Amino acid sequence: MIPVKACLFDVFGTVVDWRSSVSREASFFFKAKNIAGVDAVEFAAEWRKLYQPAMEEVRSGRRAWTILDELHRESLLKLVGRYGIKDLPEKEIDDLNRAWHRLDPWPDVIEGLTRLKKKLIIAPCSNGNIALMVNMAKRAGLPWDCILGAETARAYKPMPDAYLVSCRQIDLPPSQVMMVAAHNGDLKAAKAQGLATAFVPRPAEHGPGQATDLAADQACVDIAAADFVDLAARLGC
Amino acid sequence: MIPVKACLFDVFGTVVDWRSSVSREASFFFKAKNIAGVDAVEFAAEWRKLYQPAMEEVRSGRRAWTILDELHRESLLKLVGRYGIKDLPEKEIDDLNRAWHRLDPWPDVIEGLTRLKKKLIIAPCSNGNIALMVNMAKRAGLPWDCILGAETARAYKPMPDAYLVSCRQIDLPPSQVMMVAAHNGDLKAAKAQGLATAFVPRPAEHGPGQATDLAADQACVDIAAADFVDLAARLGC
Repeated sequence: MIPVKACLFDVFGTVVDWRSSVSREASFFFKAKNIAGVDAVEFAAEWRKLYQPAMEEVRSGRRAWTILDELHRESLLKLVGRYGIKDLPEKEIDDLNRAWHRLDPWPDVIEGLTRLKKKLIIAPCSNGNIALMVNMAKRAGLPWDCILGAETARAYKPMPDAYLVSCRQIDLPPSQVMMVAAHNGDLKAAKAQGLATAFVPRPAEHGPGQATDLAADQACVDIAAADFVDLAARLGC
Repeated sequence: MIPVKACLFDVFGTVVDWRSSVSREASFFFKAKNIAGVDAVEFAAEWRKLYQPAMEEVRSGRRAWTILDELHRESLLKLVGRYGIKDLPEKEIDDLNRAWHRLDPWPDVIEGLTRLKKKLIIAPCSNGNIALMVNMAKRAGLPWDCILGAETARAYKPMPDAYLVSCRQIDLPPSQVMMVAAHNGDLKAAKAQGLATAFVPRPAEHGPGQATDLAADQACVDIAAADFVDLAARLGC
C-alpha cells in the first residue's frame, strides 16, 4: 500500500460532472430569459473549449495572475457575442457565470471522500478559484479539509508549482501526497513532481463518443481505481 | 439581524485554548526527554510572547513573507537556548514546534461552528499557516469550509490585506463577512476594512488574572456574544 497522508483531487470532470451541470444551468437560464435557439449542451462544450486557451495566457506569463471566475466570465462574454445573445445585464452574466459553482458530483464521490477524509487530508487541487470551490462544496456537500489549487498556489495546472506549492502548504513531501484525476495529463504532470497518482475513469465526462482518458496510462499512474469508493478501499480507508 | 454570508474566525485564543494546550504538549515533551526544571506553563507563555515581534518583522517589510510554523520554530530555538536545553535533534524540535497544531477548542466551539456552517461559510482568518490550521482542524474536528488567513492572503493580521484578501477569496464584500474574535484589536482592524464583527469573551486565555479583552469594545463590535453557540443563535443559525 502506498503510504500517502493526503489526496489532492482534480475537480472538473473528476469530482463533478461539469458537462451535464453547466448544460442544465444554461438551459434554465435561456428558458428564464426567453432566449430561443441555443443548444445548451453545445453551449457548455463551447464554453469549456475556451478554458485552456484562457489559462494559457496566464501560464505563459503574457497575462498577470487572474482567477478562473474571471477567465470564465470573459469566455462567457465571447460566447454570448458569438451566439448573438444581446442586452444581458451584468448581474445576469454573473449569475450564468456562477453555473460553474453549481456542479453536481459523480455518484460515488461523497461516500468516497467521506471515507478518505477519516484517515487522510483531502483537498481539491483544481484550476478553479477558492470561491468557486467553496460554493460548489457547500452546495454539493463535498467534505474538503481545505481548498488548495491554482489560487493558493498562484499557478495553473499542469505547471509544477500547482502541485508543489499545494504539497508545501500542507507541509508534506510530494511522495506522501496522491493526485487523483480522470485525466492522464494531469497525473503525468503530478508524477513528474514526485507525487503519487491515482486514475479514476469518467467515461461520460465529454458525453457520447468520448475517445480520451478512458483508461489509466500505466506510465504515470500508481493506482487505477474504479471510482472514489474503490480508491478509499485501496488506500485502506 | 446582520445579513452576513460568512464568518471568519480568529483562532489562537478565540477557537482554541493555546495556553493550556501548548503547556500540556511542552510538559509531555519535557517529561519524555527527561528535561527537568522547566515550568511548562511559563514556557508556553514565553513562546507566545515572541509571536508578535516575529510577525512584526514580516509586517514591516524587513523580512520576506514567512509562514507562522517557521516563525514559531525560530522562537522555539531562542527559547530552548534561553532555558539552557541542549542537544535536541532537529526532528524533536519539529515535533515540539507542532504543539501549535495540537490545540484543543473551547467547549462551545464544535457545536457553534456546526450550526453556523449550515447557513454560512465558516473559515479561520488566523495568522497560522494552512498546514497548522488543517492539522489542528482534523485533530479537533473543526468543520471549516476552507482555510483562509495569513498564508492565503500573504499578510499578517492586523494588516488590512489579511481581512480584505480573505473576503475577496470567497467573493464577498466585507459588509457580508463577519470577523469573530476574542480580541478587540483584531475586531477594530476588521471593522476598519468594513467587515461586520462579533466579540466572544475568552477570559481564561491568558490564565489567572487576565486583564485585557474581558468585554467587547462597543466602538468596533456589532455583536457581543456569550460564546459560539450564542453567536449561532444571534445569526439565525
